[in-house]
Amino acid sequence: MKKYNILIAIMLSAIQGMTQEGARQSFHFPDVNGYQVLKADLHTHSVFSDGMVWPSLRVEEAWREGLDIIAITEHIEYRPNKADVNGDHNRSFAIAKEQADKAGILVIPGSEITRKMPPGHFNALFITDANKLEVPDWKEAFREARRQGAFIFWNHPGWKAQQPDSARWMPEHQMLFDSGYMEGIEIANYEEWYPSALRWALNRNLTLLGNSDIHGAIYQQYEVHKGKHRPITLIFAKNSTLTEIHEALKQRRTAVLFDGMVIGREEWLTPMIKSTIEVNPYPSASTESRITMVLENKSDLDVMLYPTPQSIAKGVIYPVAIPARSKVLLSLRLKDDEMKAMPSHTVQMTVKDWYTKENTTLTMDLTFKR
Amino acid sequence: MKKYNILIAIMLSAIQGMTQEGARQSFHFPDVNGYQVLKADLHTHSVFSDGMVWPSLRVEEAWREGLDIIAITEHIEYRPNKADVNGDHNRSFAIAKEQADKAGILVIPGSEITRKMPPGHFNALFITDANKLEVPDWKEAFREARRQGAFIFWNHPGWKAQQPDSARWMPEHQMLFDSGYMEGIEIANYEEWYPSALRWALNRNLTLLGNSDIHGAIYQQYEVHKGKHRPITLIFAKNSTLTEIHEALKQRRTAVLFDGMVIGREEWLTPMIKSTIEVNPYPSASTESRITMVLENKSDLDVMLYPTPQSIAKGVIYPVAIPARSKVLLSLRLKDDEMKAMPSHTVQMTVKDWYTKENTTLTMDLTFKR
Amino acid sequence: MKKYNILIAIMLSAIQGMTQEGARQSFHFPDVNGYQVLKADLHTHSVFSDGMVWPSLRVEEAWREGLDIIAITEHIEYRPNKADVNGDHNRSFAIAKEQADKAGILVIPGSEITRKMPPGHFNALFITDANKLEVPDWKEAFREARRQGAFIFWNHPGWKAQQPDSARWMPEHQMLFDSGYMEGIEIANYEEWYPSALRWALNRNLTLLGNSDIHGAIYQQYEVHKGKHRPITLIFAKNSTLTEIHEALKQRRTAVLFDGMVIGREEWLTPMIKSTIEVNPYPSASTESRITMVLENKSDLDVMLYPTPQSIAKGVIYPVAIPARSKVLLSLRLKDDEMKAMPSHTVQMTVKDWYTKENTTLTMDLTFKR
Amino acid sequence: MKKYNILIAIMLSAIQGMTQEGARQSFHFPDVNGYQVLKADLHTHSVFSDGMVWPSLRVEEAWREGLDIIAITEHIEYRPNKADVNGDHNRSFAIAKEQADKAGILVIPGSEITRKMPPGHFNALFITDANKLEVPDWKEAFREARRQGAFIFWNHPGWKAQQPDSARWMPEHQMLFDSGYMEGIEIANYEEWYPSALRWALNRNLTLLGNSDIHGAIYQQYEVHKGKHRPITLIFAKNSTLTEIHEALKQRRTAVLFDGMVIGREEWLTPMIKSTIEVNPYPSASTESRITMVLENKSDLDVMLYPTPQSIAKGVIYPVAIPARSKVLLSLRLKDDEMKAMPSHTVQMTVKDWYTKENTTLTMDLTFKR
Repeated sequence: MKKYNILIAIMLSAIQGMTQEGARQSFHFPDVNGYQVLKADLHTHSVFSDGMVWPSLRVEEAWREGLDIIAITEHIEYRPNKADVNGDHNRSFAIAKEQADKAGILVIPGSEITRKMPPGHFNALFITDANKLEVPDWKEAFREARRQGAFIFWNHPGWKAQQPDSARWMPEHQMLFDSGYMEGIEIANYEEWYPSALRWALNRNLTLLGNSDIHGAIYQQYEVHKGKHRPITLIFAKNSTLTEIHEALKQRRTAVLFDGMVIGREEWLTPMIKSTIEVNPYPSASTESRITMVLENKSDLDVMLYPTPQSIAKGVIYPVAIPARSKVLLSLRLKDDEMKAMPSHTVQMTVKDWYTKENTTLTMDLTFKR
Repeated sequence: MKKYNILIAIMLSAIQGMTQEGARQSFHFPDVNGYQVLKADLHTHSVFSDGMVWPSLRVEEAWREGLDIIAITEHIEYRPNKADVNGDHNRSFAIAKEQADKAGILVIPGSEITRKMPPGHFNALFITDANKLEVPDWKEAFREARRQGAFIFWNHPGWKAQQPDSARWMPEHQMLFDSGYMEGIEIANYEEWYPSALRWALNRNLTLLGNSDIHGAIYQQYEVHKGKHRPITLIFAKNSTLTEIHEALKQRRTAVLFDGMVIGREEWLTPMIKSTIEVNPYPSASTESRITMVLENKSDLDVMLYPTPQSIAKGVIYPVAIPARSKVLLSLRLKDDEMKAMPSHTVQMTVKDWYTKENTTLTMDLTFKR
Repeated sequence: MKKYNILIAIMLSAIQGMTQEGARQSFHFPDVNGYQVLKADLHTHSVFSDGMVWPSLRVEEAWREGLDIIAITEHIEYRPNKADVNGDHNRSFAIAKEQADKAGILVIPGSEITRKMPPGHFNALFITDANKLEVPDWKEAFREARRQGAFIFWNHPGWKAQQPDSARWMPEHQMLFDSGYMEGIEIANYEEWYPSALRWALNRNLTLLGNSDIHGAIYQQYEVHKGKHRPITLIFAKNSTLTEIHEALKQRRTAVLFDGMVIGREEWLTPMIKSTIEVNPYPSASTESRITMVLENKSDLDVMLYPTPQSIAKGVIYPVAIPARSKVLLSLRLKDDEMKAMPSHTVQMTVKDWYTKENTTLTMDLTFKR
Repeated sequence: MKKYNILIAIMLSAIQGMTQEGARQSFHFPDVNGYQVLKADLHTHSVFSDGMVWPSLRVEEAWREGLDIIAITEHIEYRPNKADVNGDHNRSFAIAKEQADKAGILVIPGSEITRKMPPGHFNALFITDANKLEVPDWKEAFREARRQGAFIFWNHPGWKAQQPDSARWMPEHQMLFDSGYMEGIEIANYEEWYPSALRWALNRNLTLLGNSDIHGAIYQQYEVHKGKHRPITLIFAKNSTLTEIHEALKQRRTAVLFDGMVIGREEWLTPMIKSTIEVNPYPSASTESRITMVLENKSDLDVMLYPTPQSIAKGVIYPVAIPARSKVLLSLRLKDDEMKAMPSHTVQMTVKDWYTKENTTLTMDLTFKR
């Protein structure tokens, strides 16, 4: 019987092997300050904890959506499928890695230390043996992760299942922060983002992360075929290697993409909008009393600029939509001789949905000149 | 250690339970000849054979896409994940059924008898114990399936991995047909449809089936969020119960939806197009020399009518697109007194992509009257 | 030469006449308090003032998008195409009406009294002769419109080209209001909505309006093929006649649809959300410790419910998306015997983007019972 | 009264002037044989004949859709709006040109010589005075167009309003061809393409054209926001000037884009598919027994490759979808030592919907090497 099964298996091995990978869509951002902009989802699950897909499907989803990096971060303490699915805590990473190597993207080994609040859930990335994290005392789990050189961040700090009243920074979190264990924090997870977590992160200089925490299937949960995306951590990195990714996370070189929003430190968002929206003179539409510029979106993300009181005073009164990969002409009327005599005119717009603080959107200066 | 894990598990059980089911989209066809039009995918896989998702995700996908029925049909002979995934051949059905009962849709127990060509792959539905199909002799597997009352059909008869030159009906298929084992045949599977299989089915009175044979994730493979669908078997049934579904399959009461096409016997497609496109007078646009009708698409499927020489002679020369849930006005000019004197005028159009035979599209008569 | 042209014209008359109208998409809302929900755009332009399309195209656009009513409201005082386009101020209505009668939708005669601020721009609907509004004194234009029985509303009160600093209610507006000339106000126009105008309207009992003010082409400006819409005035009416529409506008029976938002008085939005989202028990998914309800969106508008502190306390912590024409299952866990003993449980959600006041979204009560 | 109107007009001139142009979407093809691939629509109408939009809207539509060139080609003999719209036959070009210069795209002066069949309708481009084409004898109209240096092509030769039975090449067409008047022919127009016209064009060496013949609004007629396009003439040109466009048309350097199809001479489509789909080794996925290549679509057009008997014999059995701007991995299994010993392997695929003849699709060779 065994032998017969093996024979059939060989006979049928073509079934899976023949399948081509699906198409990888373009999901590009121009370099920022000389760094590549890598797209990462650092919090995902598979059937090996409480997820609903095989680890290699996580890689396929990421490949197709245009991501560069994922982490598979199974719950150490919660494995409801265990009666059906074997394998220790390192198994799902091994399966995913095989597929990732083939596709040419990166998978980071990780685990989710999963406890009730406090301290809640934390991801430990770049670990070397997930099995050693399965210990009764959660503090010991953090110590072990750190011994393995992990980068650790607090997951969904505003998750209402654990903090129904409001997101609170508790003594345990302060302790994890003071001891250097907590280096980052999710400001976006699944379908929510947490303004208070952004505030905490900016005050304490934590790395900003945004991840899907996906349990089901990405293309079912998010309308990727319609241009939407899961929550994504943008990593500003010199190259796409595990060492450099780890370094970039430690150096706080990240921003977060969430539901069309870009959330990050002003020092990164300011150069990022400049590399995203290229602004150039457009002489054919310019006249003596009008300067026209062409704004070109060099990325695969839609951008919208909003007028400010300063721009309205100069006559730029409507929102300017610049969809991904498109161009827009924007004109400034020169109302009088004084204006015509000036060599250039700077107009301040705000970038819709690009947040540098809880209630602050990014400002972009457009300089009109011939 | 065990006890500690159990405690944590209880503590965390909220994680999954809280999740709402995703939205179920409208995917409706009006009744045809007094039968409901049920949407079924009767060929799917999970991690329990060589698929990449958990069985309950198959149910969620079907719920969301608007399907009424699925079958989970794991390969009996091919289980590449076996080192990681336990469970006998009935296990994946059991997991799917729990989710399906909750969602209020049907899951049919089934298995895929998976052999090299001939005879190739066959699905046995409505079986009672899949484990008994694991036998060395494929003929014995068919006999066992039949003993369990199975409805059996030939899968992807034109699959080029097994029939690279051309789809052939071999002596083994004739034998399975003659003995009554093979009652149906897939004319569409995954990304292909097989005109020759349609011809065989019509000649031998086999039930027509169209299924996804999905191994990955439906929403990733098909652009469901953009209104596309997997291959689907439409079942004309009195109600949505296993007994009636089985009866409908035996009675050949099906048609197939594939990539925007509808493929079926003329006796079903003719009443189906009539219930799908409602035609009524539209007096406000009619004049003495023009009769205008309103065509309303009562389904969630886009329909397009094409002119024929007969309609062109009457002046209807352009295609008429009637997207899902929309209305179109169509006018007929009455060129002379003779035409004006007639009480009604019938115009013949063809229905694009509705096939009743290999190279034959359905004809629809539109009657213009005031 | 003339004769030759006429002959050719007859010969060619088929060119335009043969064209079918394009498909009218479904854009439905269930009745509210026994009133139909009519979709209107009461502010549009054509080439007869400074628009870029022929009046009959305005009707085609409306037909296709699923609207019931439009008004063509040319500027009286601004006709930049006059050197090329003849016709008095009533001509564009006449052209549109011919097409509207044929399509079976309504077009309201109107004009835009177009002055610098104050008082700015106003639409006068249901007028009988637009030519008489061309008078030097704007007050006289209002008097004339009123003599013709017009319904008059203030257009884009927050338009930054006229009020760059902030939207202000000036003495002239108070005068128009006090004298009964101004009965309504646009709270949304083109690409903007004006929270301050909503506040003014609620305080002074003005009719709420939201219109496109379209000059270009609707399908180019708004992504209608992707399910988006222009700004729309929803009118709660007994039927679709000019008399009843006029009455409904006078009675303030309106709400505004703008970029996925619904803005209106609570007395209309509360019954409207109830008729839009039907809530029913879903026994198959309910258990002793869980009550599941099915929420069905009966409209063509996507709806999203958000948790409130009250719902979070009951365990409903995630947003609930209910896209147009879809169903969602929502479950409530009964945590203890006390909860299980209660006959029903009411959960309060907020309706995302449904505004009853400047900063207040609508609340919806969901009652869970078996 | 006049003076008052002028004052108001000045006061209001801001209304139109402030409007930004809408976003121009990316619609790119890589260069082919050193030529740019320009996108042109050489057959459009405005309110100045029987169209429904202002000429400058034609330019805006083209700008937004990503086109480089349009021609406004009013009917000389059919002007149903003449009672409302003044202006001679050159007026609509003048209006369009002003907008095109500003936007930086090209508009070609042209007219449609509009006669019953034979000879039917013809476009004359690059004319210098359209008024001179208004003559009773159609032969004289052609002579005049030619005197002005026109490039002349036959419009919609398969239009069923003029040729209801079947498209016929009549003696008049032969005469126009023999005399050198007819240099090109539309093989696609509006919603149809004409295989027989392609055959005629290849046999007689006519320039291939595909145009919209739009009367309504482009974004309403075609789902541009969803990535669809009007029929388009692709012009392979050294630069985007009127002189070079004219030369390219005379030299037959064109292909046609119609409803996702590309139709053209094999000598142009073969290099075009090579520049569109870049093929490179993908070492990370290759093994001793498998060579993997990455196929990257460098254009904004979706491409799909289909297996051929030759590729099926080598194990490439499924269609390969390569959406715009995306990448796909494609693997070839090396079945035996003989295959492994070969330095490279060429697989023949067909390019779906790329037609070089009436029933012939383009073949593409994929070379697999390390």
